[in-house]
Amino acid sequence: MTRPIIGRVVPEQWRSTGAPAPLREPGTARIAVDLLGGDHAPAVVVDGALRAVQDDPSLHLTLVGPAEAAGAVLDALDPAEHHRITTVPGGSAAEAVAAGLADALVSAGDTAVTVLSAARALGRWPGVRRPPLAAVLPTAAGRLVLLDVGSSVDPDEPALAMHARLGAAYAAVVHDLPDPRVGLLTIGTEPGKGDRLRRSAPRLLEALPLRYTGLVEGSDVVLGTAADVVVTDGFTGNVLLKALEAAHGAEQADDSRAAVLLGVRGIVVVCHGAATGPDLAGGIGFAAGLHRRAALAAIAELMSYNEVSHE
Amino acid sequence: MTRPIIGRVVPEQWRSTGAPAPLREPGTARIAVDLLGGDHAPAVVVDGALRAVQDDPSLHLTLVGPAEAAGAVLDALDPAEHHRITTVPGGSAAEAVAAGLADALVSAGDTAVTVLSAARALGRWPGVRRPPLAAVLPTAAGRLVLLDVGSSVDPDEPALAMHARLGAAYAAVVHDLPDPRVGLLTIGTEPGKGDRLRRSAPRLLEALPLRYTGLVEGSDVVLGTAADVVVTDGFTGNVLLKALEAAHGAEQADDSRAAVLLGVRGIVVVCHGAATGPDLAGGIGFAAGLHRRAALAAIAELMSYNEVSHE
Repeated sequence: MTRPIIGRVVPEQWRSTGAPAPLREPGTARIAVDLLGGDHAPAVVVDGALRAVQDDPSLHLTLVGPAEAAGAVLDALDPAEHHRITTVPGGSAAEAVAAGLADALVSAGDTAVTVLSAARALGRWPGVRRPPLAAVLPTAAGRLVLLDVGSSVDPDEPALAMHARLGAAYAAVVHDLPDPRVGLLTIGTEPGKGDRLRRSAPRLLEALPLRYTGLVEGSDVVLGTAADVVVTDGFTGNVLLKALEAAHGAEQADDSRAAVLLGVRGIVVVCHGAATGPDLAGGIGFAAGLHRRAALAAIAELMSYNEVSHE
Repeated sequence: MTRPIIGRVVPEQWRSTGAPAPLREPGTARIAVDLLGGDHAPAVVVDGALRAVQDDPSLHLTLVGPAEAAGAVLDALDPAEHHRITTVPGGSAAEAVAAGLADALVSAGDTAVTVLSAARALGRWPGVRRPPLAAVLPTAAGRLVLLDVGSSVDPDEPALAMHARLGAAYAAVVHDLPDPRVGLLTIGTEPGKGDRLRRSAPRLLEALPLRYTGLVEGSDVVLGTAADVVVTDGFTGNVLLKALEAAHGAEQADDSRAAVLLGVRGIVVVCHGAATGPDLAGGIGFAAGLHRRAALAAIAELMSYNEVSHE
C-alpha cells in the first residue's frame, strides 16, 4: 500500500519516524503541519491535528516537530489509523512539502518566518517578490478575499498590482467567480482618496487584465457589495483582519481564521498565532480542500493567461 | 435676553439672518453646524439639527449654509424656539466659531476640507502640523480613543508622537482616566513588528511623558484591554473605523459615529459623510458636552504640563 516517492530526493531529516509517506490516492490529501507553530503550540496543534484526522478519513498528516508532540497524536489515535500519520522531527513544514512528503502545509507559527521559509523551500512564481497572504472573509454578499493580511508590510505599486492579480485568480478558482471585482482599499471612494501609495496605485491597477472596480472603504470589506477581492498592504490588512475577527468573535466560519499564501509553488495555509484546536483543524481542512480541487494549478493557469493577454 | 458678543469683530457674512447670536449662559452650548456637509446634506443635517434642538433646551445652533435649508429648521420649530437658531448663509462653520458665534462646530462634510478649514480659521496648537481626528470606540473594557482616523494619512514619527500626546490628554480629560495607557497599533506585540513607520516610532513614544504601554494589534482596538488610547496613521485608522462601524451596524453608540479634531484652537466634531440625522444629532450633543465641561482648556493645560515636565 505504500511506495517511495519517485523522482524526489528525500533529505535525511525527512525520513519518517512513523509510517512511510502515504500513497497519493484520489481524494487523499497529505498535509504537513508545523507542530511548534502558534502561541499555544504544541498542545493546540496536537488537538487540531486529531480533530482533522478524525473528521476526514482521506486525510494524511505529516507532523513536523518534536517526537513527544507527534507521539501525543499517535497515542490518541486508533492504531489502525497510524498509517495516516508521518512524523518528522526537524526542518520546516515547507521543506516537507518541497520534499514531496505532503501536498500542502499548515502553520500557526510566526507569519514572517512561515512566508520566508515557504518562499525559500517552495519557490515563488515569476514576478512575485513578497508572496501575499489572502484571507477569506464572510460578508452578507458572499465570500470576500482580502489581501495582503500580513506578509508585505511596505509594498510598492507593482506589489499591490501583483496582489490584485493573485487575488482575482484565487477568487475565480476557489470562489467560482468567473470575473471577480477587484477594489483598492482606501479612505474614500472619490478618485485621489488615500495616502501616497493609494493615490498612485490606481494607474497600475487600471491597466491590469482584470475587473478593477476602483476605490473601496473599510465598510466594503464587511458588506461585500462593492468588490469580491480587496487589495491592500499587509499592515492595514493585518490590523483590519484582527479587528474584525475580534468584533465577530467566535461566530465566524473556520475558513476565515486561516489565510492562504499566494504566489509560491505550493499550498501554504497560515493560521494566526492565537489559533485554537478547531481553528487549526479548520486550516487543515481548508488546505486539503485546496489540494483536492487542484486550486494551485488552476490559479497558475489563470495567471499565465493574464500574462499572455496583457502582452 | 440677547446682547452682542463683546470684543469680537463679526464679519459681514456672520450677520445673522435670524435672531442675533444668543447669550452665552452657564449650561448653554452654541454649536455651528455645516448644513451642506455630508452625502445626504442638507436633508439629514436639517433632521439632525432639529433632533438636537428638541433634545436639549440649552442648545443654540448656528446653521451655516443655504437659507432654504436653515429655513426648514426654523419652519419645523415652535416660533418661541427661534431665538435658539442663528443662520449664516456663507462661509464655513469653522469661521463661525472663529468669529465667536459658536462654541464648537459639527460637520459631516469632506474630512480633509473640514480639517483644513478648521486649522486655518481657528489655528493649530504649537507643534501640531496636521491635527489628528480622534474617534471614541466602545469596548467591553470601556471607551477607547483611536487616532488618527483620517486626517493625517502619511504621518512621520513626530506626528505619531503628537497623536499620542493629544490622545492621552483627551482620554485623561474626557474619559476621566488620570493616566491612560497609550498603545501603538501594529501587526504583532513583539518588539519590531510592523512596517517602517511602526518599527521606528516606539523610540519616540517611549520618551514621551505619558504611559506608553507598547505595541497593540487590531483586536486590541475592539477588546480595549491593552490600551485606552491607540495611536495610528489616518489611513489605517480610517479603514479600521469604517470597517468596525459596518461590523457593529446600528448597535453602536452615537458618540462613536463622530470624531473630534485635536490640536486646533476650538472644538471641532466631524461626522462621517454617510451620517444620518440621529448621527448628526449625536455629534452635536457630543460637541455640546465637550464645550460644557470645558474639555479643550483642560486638554490644553495637560499638554502644556507635559511639555514642561519633558524639559
